[in-house]
Amino acid sequence: MRVDGKPLRTIWPAADESRVTIIDQTRLPHEFVICELATLGDFEVAIREMKVRGAPLIGVTAAYGLAIALRDDPSDTGLAAASARLLATRPTAVNLAWALDVMRADLFGLPIAERAAAAFAKAGELADLDVAICDAIGANGLALIAKIAQRKGRVSILTHCNAGWLCAVDWGTATAPIYKAQEAGIDLHVYVDETRPRNQGASLTAWELGQQGVSHQVIVDNAGGHIMQHGGVDLVIVGTDRTTATGDVCNKIGTYLKALAAKDNGVPFYVAAPSSSIDFAIFDGVRDIPIEERSAREVTHMRGRTDDGRLETVRIVPEGSRVANPAFDVTPARLVSGLITERGIIPARREALATAFPERLVLVE
Amino acid sequence: MRVDGKPLRTIWPAADESRVTIIDQTRLPHEFVICELATLGDFEVAIREMKVRGAPLIGVTAAYGLAIALRDDPSDTGLAAASARLLATRPTAVNLAWALDVMRADLFGLPIAERAAAAFAKAGELADLDVAICDAIGANGLALIAKIAQRKGRVSILTHCNAGWLCAVDWGTATAPIYKAQEAGIDLHVYVDETRPRNQGASLTAWELGQQGVSHQVIVDNAGGHIMQHGGVDLVIVGTDRTTATGDVCNKIGTYLKALAAKDNGVPFYVAAPSSSIDFAIFDGVRDIPIEERSAREVTHMRGRTDDGRLETVRIVPEGSRVANPAFDVTPARLVSGLITERGIIPARREALATAFPERLVLVE
Repeated sequence: MRVDGKPLRTIWPAADESRVTIIDQTRLPHEFVICELATLGDFEVAIREMKVRGAPLIGVTAAYGLAIALRDDPSDTGLAAASARLLATRPTAVNLAWALDVMRADLFGLPIAERAAAAFAKAGELADLDVAICDAIGANGLALIAKIAQRKGRVSILTHCNAGWLCAVDWGTATAPIYKAQEAGIDLHVYVDETRPRNQGASLTAWELGQQGVSHQVIVDNAGGHIMQHGGVDLVIVGTDRTTATGDVCNKIGTYLKALAAKDNGVPFYVAAPSSSIDFAIFDGVRDIPIEERSAREVTHMRGRTDDGRLETVRIVPEGSRVANPAFDVTPARLVSGLITERGIIPARREALATAFPERLVLVE
Repeated sequence: MRVDGKPLRTIWPAADESRVTIIDQTRLPHEFVICELATLGDFEVAIREMKVRGAPLIGVTAAYGLAIALRDDPSDTGLAAASARLLATRPTAVNLAWALDVMRADLFGLPIAERAAAAFAKAGELADLDVAICDAIGANGLALIAKIAQRKGRVSILTHCNAGWLCAVDWGTATAPIYKAQEAGIDLHVYVDETRPRNQGASLTAWELGQQGVSHQVIVDNAGGHIMQHGGVDLVIVGTDRTTATGDVCNKIGTYLKALAAKDNGVPFYVAAPSSSIDFAIFDGVRDIPIEERSAREVTHMRGRTDDGRLETVRIVPEGSRVANPAFDVTPARLVSGLITERGIIPARREALATAFPERLVLVE
């Protein structure tokens, strides 16, 4: 996608393979800052502090992190230790585990001296694979949007959090169909849920839609139900951090509420789900997906820019009031109209997913 | 209720009837500031800018505003003009119209010279009536909480926005059962929805629960569904700005989403509804209740206190991104377990409401 009109990925390696450059997403939308990751510690901090975030991008970042770590210690112990440290940075998204599994599976068989270079190449392949997957999700989702456009002219889409270009390497997951529809000349409008507490919708999705010139409005997370009640939304598309083998969708906190509203108003609710985000080892999302509880400060404080241009962080909750801050929720499969994957739109049902991704099933059994 | 341990109402008249004092709720929770309203213009600003807010308190404030205006012009024209100006300050809450109707009905029949004093006395009666109504709502709602406490010990309640002491003259509506339960020694915990965009939950409800010593946690508006899915909420109690004759509940934007989540998880969803907030002339809430669209700046900007104590307002949405900001939504009666009124807990159904408030029906027909 584009920043200030120039094409850019969200992560790119240095030519000498000594480091990787990312966009510091905690600084958006107020500042566009890139930063370089040159040690395993840098990667851990970047993932844990959400300088990079979004399931697909976390996976690719971890892969590069492993490659960088192997330059210092490419032994079996080193590989296992670096992998464990990266895996511990975020508990919910399955892509992190998936990417590290893929890397380890490739690397353990190689001579120790070849591992670092091979890992760097493999991380690059995962990045390219992510772009190809998002591109396919975009093409598959475009069909849904085009069908509504044929009937209605303008298509109004609601999205939650940032499952955009910034959450992946390029295109994004939930935004890929939107960007493809824009390229196809379809008249679009996107309602962007602010997505408290970290405001990834207001900070990131609004910013990237603005950079790509897509018509959009930011709404508070409370507003989507009302807008759906009044016929303002034709389609909901969200991303996922982990989807179970049965089609339960774990995604940013609040997704479940939008799914309920979509169901109540007959609005199709689709989840853009690269197959790497499907966890074929879990069958009951509400019961079995661990939900990360994040810092109270995400709720109590808010960062932004003053009218005279200073960046300030302000407290918005009274001193002495405690906070609960679960970062994700689970939308049961019964509320999901379909999963937009790189292999087409798949019903959120165990048999359908098993049929579409038979090779993943084998890995689990 | 209490502020810093001292009993206080949210609005009180000067002994010489020259002015009325309110708490400037836009300054909470960061500053406790009272301010005096001495002209009709002061009252219009106070209501429009939400220094006072909450359906019951708006009604009482408007009644006092009318009384103050009549000191300058107690003629029929003066009465009608002041009433129209006050009515125009906020479009959604029906209490505003209700209080002004009650005032006018009393005052038109009086000699012009007696109107100002009578109006002041009548506004005081409406304030006392509001306290009595909230007290009765508290007693009726307490029964619900006590029943859960008997079964479970600790009772966990979720509330949205501020239907607290600060929205009324004393006790509040949705909080009245909570404060009564606290007095009765029931072990309570309250989840407080932040309530974007104006954060009345985080700013006002959390502050007043803190002042009264009620255990509570602030959560983002996205979190309630997840907490209900995991059995963390025994009861939802919210307020209402306008409830139809058929039991559809208009309340702060986002209420509908919590009602859907409550329904999906078998959590009772009750609405504390003083009968003044029931509009017996409207039968379809989604179709017929006008929903106020408020300023974009409520969404794009956030006010709070920096770590070093300065109050700052920061922009949190990218420049150039547009905003939609509907202030209320409508929860269909089918999602409402019951209305906690001053006359008991009434099913959210036309016949039940008509039976409970026959005198209001006559007024409409």
